[in-house]
Amino acid sequence: MKNNLAKVSRSRSVNAAVANSNLKLAVAKTPEALAPDHSRIISYLEAHKPATPCLVVDLSIVAGKYGDLRAALPAAEIFYAVKANPAPEILDRLVALGSSFDTASAGEIRQVLAAGAKPARISFGNTIKKPADIAFAHAVGVDLFAFDSEAELRKIAQHAPGARVFCRILVEGKGALWPLNKKFGCAPEMAADLLVGAAKLGLVPHGVSFHVGSQQLDPAQWGNAIAEAKWVFDRAAEQGVTLRMVDLGGGFPATYGPGVPTVAAYGAAIGRALKASFGAGQPEIIIEPGRYMVGDAGVLETEVVLVSQKSYDDDRRWVYLDVGRFGGLAEVEGEAIRYRIRPVGESAAPEAPVVLAGPTCDSADILYDKAGYTLPSDLESGDRLRLYSTGAYTTTYSAVNFNGFDPLRAIYI
Amino acid sequence: MKNNLAKVSRSRSVNAAVANSNLKLAVAKTPEALAPDHSRIISYLEAHKPATPCLVVDLSIVAGKYGDLRAALPAAEIFYAVKANPAPEILDRLVALGSSFDTASAGEIRQVLAAGAKPARISFGNTIKKPADIAFAHAVGVDLFAFDSEAELRKIAQHAPGARVFCRILVEGKGALWPLNKKFGCAPEMAADLLVGAAKLGLVPHGVSFHVGSQQLDPAQWGNAIAEAKWVFDRAAEQGVTLRMVDLGGGFPATYGPGVPTVAAYGAAIGRALKASFGAGQPEIIIEPGRYMVGDAGVLETEVVLVSQKSYDDDRRWVYLDVGRFGGLAEVEGEAIRYRIRPVGESAAPEAPVVLAGPTCDSADILYDKAGYTLPSDLESGDRLRLYSTGAYTTTYSAVNFNGFDPLRAIYI
Repeated sequence: MKNNLAKVSRSRSVNAAVANSNLKLAVAKTPEALAPDHSRIISYLEAHKPATPCLVVDLSIVAGKYGDLRAALPAAEIFYAVKANPAPEILDRLVALGSSFDTASAGEIRQVLAAGAKPARISFGNTIKKPADIAFAHAVGVDLFAFDSEAELRKIAQHAPGARVFCRILVEGKGALWPLNKKFGCAPEMAADLLVGAAKLGLVPHGVSFHVGSQQLDPAQWGNAIAEAKWVFDRAAEQGVTLRMVDLGGGFPATYGPGVPTVAAYGAAIGRALKASFGAGQPEIIIEPGRYMVGDAGVLETEVVLVSQKSYDDDRRWVYLDVGRFGGLAEVEGEAIRYRIRPVGESAAPEAPVVLAGPTCDSADILYDKAGYTLPSDLESGDRLRLYSTGAYTTTYSAVNFNGFDPLRAIYI
Repeated sequence: MKNNLAKVSRSRSVNAAVANSNLKLAVAKTPEALAPDHSRIISYLEAHKPATPCLVVDLSIVAGKYGDLRAALPAAEIFYAVKANPAPEILDRLVALGSSFDTASAGEIRQVLAAGAKPARISFGNTIKKPADIAFAHAVGVDLFAFDSEAELRKIAQHAPGARVFCRILVEGKGALWPLNKKFGCAPEMAADLLVGAAKLGLVPHGVSFHVGSQQLDPAQWGNAIAEAKWVFDRAAEQGVTLRMVDLGGGFPATYGPGVPTVAAYGAAIGRALKASFGAGQPEIIIEPGRYMVGDAGVLETEVVLVSQKSYDDDRRWVYLDVGRFGGLAEVEGEAIRYRIRPVGESAAPEAPVVLAGPTCDSADILYDKAGYTLPSDLESGDRLRLYSTGAYTTTYSAVNFNGFDPLRAIYI
């Protein structure tokens, strides 16, 4: 077996509790984000009545989100998380706006380069990479790589010699609707040792990243994580290694419903946390928004294929749509992400409870059973519904051809 | 609102308990299926070393399964559930063997016709169909349609006038690894009324279908369902409608591990149940195997991208593969379907516990965390693993390009 590059150094004293209590105070008065303006998309849908299911994405909303986030966190370099929606139209627009890009694979790097992004604007942010893909990224000029283990660090040292590397740490992400688990990141003490080891392997130990959980509704959650990052900076400095960058990850929310703080509130909370932990010696900051940037920009129109009841005493109707979990709505798993769903056109009928399901013969293809959705009681086969804020993590989750259904179609306006 | 076509008729007296207790007795001595012979696939993999991830399917295993099932249930017409794996190579082979086909969509009907199947051999088995797709099926000569609601029945009457229809009923499917829920089927009393109504709409009320749950490991589960079907036959007969067919659905298992009864045991249990419920007046029988027919025929070879630990005191390694939940292994959801996973080549190292995860940046892309998998302690990046009995519900569940990764590639030999 290989020698452990990292040494054990467990003593830790993060002063996070103090910083965190200050942040909690700030959250109480957090302003709420306004519902996105989907009027351009609605006009398009009314004018073109596209075959369903169909996602329509308004690129001007993407641009607006980019601008709002820049204003809220002016010190941060924005690396768009391509996996949220890699459509060329979105990548082109973001390249034009000056965005950088967080990529998950060689495939995504190719897509971003094809959109005209400079390699210096690309981070290979997946901590799980094949050697050939690292070598490809290095060959095309990508110089920033994530890792969270010694084995990955050694791969990067071999196939992207001299590159800048950052280590993802495990943090607790309370309050996220799509909480992360231990799949990514390592303990901060291991991170510090590995970053010190990176220099010995000829790499540039650049910084620390974390993720506080997707659709994170509590801006205060960045406070503890930033304090952990500072702890890693200090441990590395004690061993003669100067770190420069903190990657605040993603987690910035789409406006699925009420209760979502403004991006300005996130910016303010993060600014306070950075000041509390780093004081005058502020690090370089990067962020990796995906859902925030494109979620609100999309509306998915779907057709009701069937409305039925299972027995004479059933108190809920089953409403089957022409899109489901395997046609793009994978994120309904667990029913945590709850899209706003409304019928097209007016109905005077009262609302009544429904179970919403997809069109496949798969019994797991149920969208919302426990979430308490209601729809007009006169809804019937052929009616159309709209699912709002569906621009992120929909098209690419689509199955290739499950049950013989085509992948989700998308139109970018 | 429309008038209810179906009348309420709730009195029921299924004598299922007696039949069921007899069947339970039979299960105790059920013989176990042998592990499938993957030697042709292994030879292919050794000779060609295909780029991973790659599924290799042995068509001779599919043919063997078809033959075994015919022998076990000689009275049944086999409708292959195309959704399990719609590869043209599989459809071609099954057409040549004389199989019929259960389809979920117009797309699948096109695929089956392209393989040379006669329309009379095709059932449109999805209870959720768009009017245009019903009309398409009718136009190309498909004459057998599933339904489980009045709204669907009216659609079929309008767009496939004169067709044969069968009603899916809700049954309890205990003992299935991928249990069904209420998404499909209606209460038997409603089914009886709707089948009687079908005749009034100009359709041919043909029979009853059910599904006892996918990967159903208890052959006795068909007993209750068959008794329910007989109850519907009797209620329809009382109203002057003669039903002819019982569709026993799918649920026949792949050999993921020990404890799987032989298909002969299923045939015997089903034969006894049919005799107990229907006596001398046996109905036409159809079955819809999907997983059973192609699951064992596939082996998926994957590469280990990374082996890591999250902290110095972590007692399990994380093993990241180049295939995950969004690249074809969707059925690991909930960790009920547990594929046999073994490394390629010999290792003298002891086995040690692992968490298995996919290559995407998605924290939900974890294959097995709680299932207790172990792998050799010297496993490292670049090693290959094989996942056995992965021929069903893998290729078509693949996402189009999630995280920039290509869909699962498959080779048919």
